[in-house]
Amino acid sequence: MGTGASVRETAMRRRAIRAYTAEPVSRAALEVILATAGLAPSAFNLQPWRFVIVERADVKTLLSDAAYRQRQVAAAPALIVVYTDTTDAIARVEEAIHPDLAEDRRESQRASVRREFARKTEEERENWGLRQGYIALGYLLLAAEEQGYQTSPMLGFDEEKIKSAVALPAQVRVAALVAIGRGAEEGRPHHRHPLDRIVKWL
Amino acid sequence: MGTGASVRETAMRRRAIRAYTAEPVSRAALEVILATAGLAPSAFNLQPWRFVIVERADVKTLLSDAAYRQRQVAAAPALIVVYTDTTDAIARVEEAIHPDLAEDRRESQRASVRREFARKTEEERENWGLRQGYIALGYLLLAAEEQGYQTSPMLGFDEEKIKSAVALPAQVRVAALVAIGRGAEEGRPHHRHPLDRIVKWL
Repeated sequence: MGTGASVRETAMRRRAIRAYTAEPVSRAALEVILATAGLAPSAFNLQPWRFVIVERADVKTLLSDAAYRQRQVAAAPALIVVYTDTTDAIARVEEAIHPDLAEDRRESQRASVRREFARKTEEERENWGLRQGYIALGYLLLAAEEQGYQTSPMLGFDEEKIKSAVALPAQVRVAALVAIGRGAEEGRPHHRHPLDRIVKWL
Repeated sequence: MGTGASVRETAMRRRAIRAYTAEPVSRAALEVILATAGLAPSAFNLQPWRFVIVERADVKTLLSDAAYRQRQVAAAPALIVVYTDTTDAIARVEEAIHPDLAEDRRESQRASVRREFARKTEEERENWGLRQGYIALGYLLLAAEEQGYQTSPMLGFDEEKIKSAVALPAQVRVAALVAIGRGAEEGRPHHRHPLDRIVKWL
């Protein structure tokens, strides 16, 4: 399946791609990509990330409208809505607790989660979980490239329209809309800050 | 240098590690890890992420205090403060614009950035950029594992104490504190939601 390339090589090769061939994204590859994204770490292991894979033309049209008709949305054979549902994650905290933990450690984790969220509003909880959706997004983009698919992650869109297009509950937050398929263009070479612009050593 | 493992294998192998050997993290490996993190995508290519690498004992003590004395902070030979400075990123937008773009496209990108932030407060701008710090964090964790180093990303800490410990400007946001070193424990196997719990197909 994969390309055999390293994480660093995969990150070097990945570029934002806005033109795609008509070839569908294989279900097997999507499952590997999403399972890899799901291996990202999260606070309390709550894994608030959720994914909607969209291939239906009518839904893609709605997503295109929600993403200001950026050309990669209509061009891609599939779209991935990356969202977070922290309310759901907290409600089902038992699913997040590691099965190897003894009951006293389980109760301690439950108590930590209760303490963390006790004084947060629903909006604050959802914004808290939203950030962790982007850790999974980082994993997802690298996993897609490794599976031989190119992507274009979009962070700018009409969030309510996206939620409406894929019938998401009101409280969730949309982290990103990702176009995915076999690239039909080269993309621009990376243009990134040199390390000494973004790193300090203490 | 790297392990030659794939993105998926690296994600499978990576676990939260809280005990480390005394071996320092090599400067060359850190540079590869940070350069890989810097390849993450960001809106308008603004790359708001910044990193402080901490090996000094006195600063580590301050960070330990800021992170509620979680044992991996004192145990790790190095710590990485992952933060975002969106104010700086916006102020120096010229650095983010791709050199291949012609002047009309450059002006269009400047205008998009101005439009995006015109009605945002400083706090809103920084919260906007903070999310993108987590994309880079996902890259960083995989790159570290690939370089043969284990990590423990912490998302819970006293943010003001972290900023004070490493002398960061007031407006920036701390995305994560990452302990890094050669692991001295196995860590717990992954415990993650099955795909059908987190994925919908449309």
